[in-house]
Amino acid sequence: MRIALDAMGGDYAPAVTVEGAVEALSENDELSVILVGDEAEISRELRKKASTRLKISIKHASQTVEMDESPLTALRRKKDSSLRVAIDLVKVGEADAMVSAGNSGVVMATALHVLGKIPGIERPAIAAVMPTLKGRFILIDAGANVDCKPVHLHQFAVMGEAYARYIFNVESPKIGLLGIGEEDAKGNELTREAIKLLRNSHVNFIGNVEGKEVFAGEADVVVCDGFVGNIALKISEGLAEAITKMLKREISENAAGRIGYLFLKGALKNFKRKTDYSEYGGAPLLGINKPCIISHGRSTSKAIKNAIKVAGTLHSKNVLGIISKECNEGLSRREEVVVKE
Amino acid sequence: MRIALDAMGGDYAPAVTVEGAVEALSENDELSVILVGDEAEISRELRKKASTRLKISIKHASQTVEMDESPLTALRRKKDSSLRVAIDLVKVGEADAMVSAGNSGVVMATALHVLGKIPGIERPAIAAVMPTLKGRFILIDAGANVDCKPVHLHQFAVMGEAYARYIFNVESPKIGLLGIGEEDAKGNELTREAIKLLRNSHVNFIGNVEGKEVFAGEADVVVCDGFVGNIALKISEGLAEAITKMLKREISENAAGRIGYLFLKGALKNFKRKTDYSEYGGAPLLGINKPCIISHGRSTSKAIKNAIKVAGTLHSKNVLGIISKECNEGLSRREEVVVKE
Repeated sequence: MRIALDAMGGDYAPAVTVEGAVEALSENDELSVILVGDEAEISRELRKKASTRLKISIKHASQTVEMDESPLTALRRKKDSSLRVAIDLVKVGEADAMVSAGNSGVVMATALHVLGKIPGIERPAIAAVMPTLKGRFILIDAGANVDCKPVHLHQFAVMGEAYARYIFNVESPKIGLLGIGEEDAKGNELTREAIKLLRNSHVNFIGNVEGKEVFAGEADVVVCDGFVGNIALKISEGLAEAITKMLKREISENAAGRIGYLFLKGALKNFKRKTDYSEYGGAPLLGINKPCIISHGRSTSKAIKNAIKVAGTLHSKNVLGIISKECNEGLSRREEVVVKE
Repeated sequence: MRIALDAMGGDYAPAVTVEGAVEALSENDELSVILVGDEAEISRELRKKASTRLKISIKHASQTVEMDESPLTALRRKKDSSLRVAIDLVKVGEADAMVSAGNSGVVMATALHVLGKIPGIERPAIAAVMPTLKGRFILIDAGANVDCKPVHLHQFAVMGEAYARYIFNVESPKIGLLGIGEEDAKGNELTREAIKLLRNSHVNFIGNVEGKEVFAGEADVVVCDGFVGNIALKISEGLAEAITKMLKREISENAAGRIGYLFLKGALKNFKRKTDYSEYGGAPLLGINKPCIISHGRSTSKAIKNAIKVAGTLHSKNVLGIISKECNEGLSRREEVVVKE
């Protein structure tokens, strides 16, 4: 699998992007990576880290997209940005998938413009992975579509299901609709209509799930519109950070606390690992015609490495082909789908 | 101030409701409480706890509302429920405010039906208090209105501002709109329209605030529709619980962790206190014509005590009168408002 990596995207690029690529390649022989961006900068980073045997190459791009740049401006004026060139490589068939930790709005708009949608999918969505007491759940849509129709939520469910099944190996993923009460009649106009579609679909739909239940691991896939999903995601990130800071403050204000912390270090480290977004690498733009992964702007090399792995698996298992098939054939012929290994 | 307390509402009623009333009265001479519900049960609890000098009385009600009962059913068939009778006492002027830890949907519907709205307010909203690194913020609407118009969000801002000003003594509360990006143009249809109204209003509006910023304490009041607000609230509760459980699990699986825990106990307790919803007592139904407070179903006596205190302050400071005045007079004459002490 050939992955195009936007080497200039993210807060710590190109150092961590190059490092992430090198780590991914050293763990998987079937991968090759094209680092896209400023050739001089990338070469310098690469010299620090890479062994010559790695299947890695550089594709020069003269521009970079800023984190606060609007999608429209970037599409018009940044035709030689690292992000755009990486996506173009997928378009012309020189890469199978692409990864960027850059401006997520621009990644989405550019991918949609250049690569288009999977036939049958009306709106691509961002699928984010979040930790639970039992493991993890997929939140879809985590921010791509702020105003949705019921049919969009239904398609998000189908895409999230395929992702849970083929990337996380959940046999029959439980799909929940993010809501404010268990009964079907509770919710807003959008969810009350969407729940009717979901009840009649072939996904394993468990009904509305409340915010309190998602972290208990009630559902494998939690469906919502992108406005609600992005708020849920950011609220969770913000709260987790705030709790960590508050705990640290309490501990450091207290002598016994400081001693306790020494003993607790191992447990806290384990805890951090389990709730660490970088374990999951990134969020695929499901519904785009080729595998595209958005990584967190603050991605570490580990997050980049894992995003490259997920991009490779999306391609090798033909997850997008499966999604297209399921959406177009009425979701009823799952058993006929042949997984391309 | 005379507070009508739904003594049968909540998971641990009437034990904790009676206890909370007794605690509130012992701290504030100006309060009196009417305990509404099953006279025999309440008397039994009261005998365990009360001193005879407290200004406490019992009003018998023969029914109770279940936690999963629909508002419509309760309104029709539970006309002698503790919740309904408590609200009726406010209606006829025998009480100044009411508190219930019962079914929040039924409290809202009954209060709206019996007491009506503040003139000028289109939709009453639930104002929940949440902790931040700096102190707290008010989330409004936390669940009363699932589908809102821009004007509703504007009114929520005005109501939340009055609450922050007169209950939490914030001089010029910063009002944020819960969103998915800083720019005014980011958001969904509802927030993009609402932000125009808020930019032209007289509240101290700071623009969109993201989920990550709310716990840093960027805004004193965070405005959103009730669907989004309820999800934000429940996600936060769920995540805080999950983090606590994960931490405990890590600690108990690890001998050093268990020793560390002994040292950390004080810090953890302090932390818990700062993030404990019971410190804030409850969530007022702002926009209802009389002070009504919904407490958490799992309220402790402390939460009930604090809810009674907030109900008393809403009345004594005439916060609802101020809200009505500000909404009806175009929000421009704050300086003329006389606070009734």
